[in-house]
Amino acid sequence: MRNLTKSILGAGTCMAIVATAVFADSHVSPTKAIVDARHAQMQLISYHTGILGAIAKGEMEYDSAIVDAAASNIREMAKLQRATIWVEGTEQGVAADSRAKAEVWSDPDGFSQKFTDLENASSAMVGAADMAAVGAGMAGIGGACKACHDDYRGPKN
Amino acid sequence: MRNLTKSILGAGTCMAIVATAVFADSHVSPTKAIVDARHAQMQLISYHTGILGAIAKGEMEYDSAIVDAAASNIREMAKLQRATIWVEGTEQGVAADSRAKAEVWSDPDGFSQKFTDLENASSAMVGAADMAAVGAGMAGIGGACKACHDDYRGPKN
Repeated sequence: MRNLTKSILGAGTCMAIVATAVFADSHVSPTKAIVDARHAQMQLISYHTGILGAIAKGEMEYDSAIVDAAASNIREMAKLQRATIWVEGTEQGVAADSRAKAEVWSDPDGFSQKFTDLENASSAMVGAADMAAVGAGMAGIGGACKACHDDYRGPKN
Repeated sequence: MRNLTKSILGAGTCMAIVATAVFADSHVSPTKAIVDARHAQMQLISYHTGILGAIAKGEMEYDSAIVDAAASNIREMAKLQRATIWVEGTEQGVAADSRAKAEVWSDPDGFSQKFTDLENASSAMVGAADMAAVGAGMAGIGGACKACHDDYRGPKN
């Protein structure tokens, strides 16, 4: 918990007080709240990628407003500030339910680049004019997801 | 389910196909996936508001990087495109676990304004220079949360 304390709160803050104060309503530990926040970020990316993938495959009707909304939302989720979410000390094996590899923190530049890649791929999807364009854009988005998971996500818990 | 189909997919798309295609991995219905996406949006807002609130109360150490990250993330969550998340036909009483009132859809301009209010309040928090400034900003963020919940969120399920 020491790294966690230092990363999110600065050294010297008492984690017990924080746990009581910040997360009293949800009755969860700070570590769980952080992991849950990451899962919410991933869930929103996955949800919108699923919509785009279905449109690319012709399983969902092409609708420019839906495509743009889904792509924009993925882009914004990729751009979320990570200081409060990707907190050191909450990797797999330390934090319950976490699949984040230690490499997230030992290789921050590489990890950051993966989110930049997703941001760029989803930006490129905005305005995709038909089903074929969505399909072409999905290679970039799906590739960005996979590349990050390959390097920075551990096996299922 | 008719309104849902029309809103997110355009009329005529078969919901059963979509359910199979888009949400096969998660084994949830489209309605549940939509409600879960909203909950993820709200969870990320709540998580970051909790951090700012604790700093405002002196229960968590002031750290400008954490304040800015939390405020920025709330702002971006407030700006998420709603076409894929706030889908008509998923209100409380229709969709399990939903607390969204029908007014979300019957009063779209009013609902949209609430998110704009949160966007503005969280934007104003970015750069808050000390604990007192965070406290002052929390009135705006907390007020925006409450105002929206008062008008557009139903009672606990």
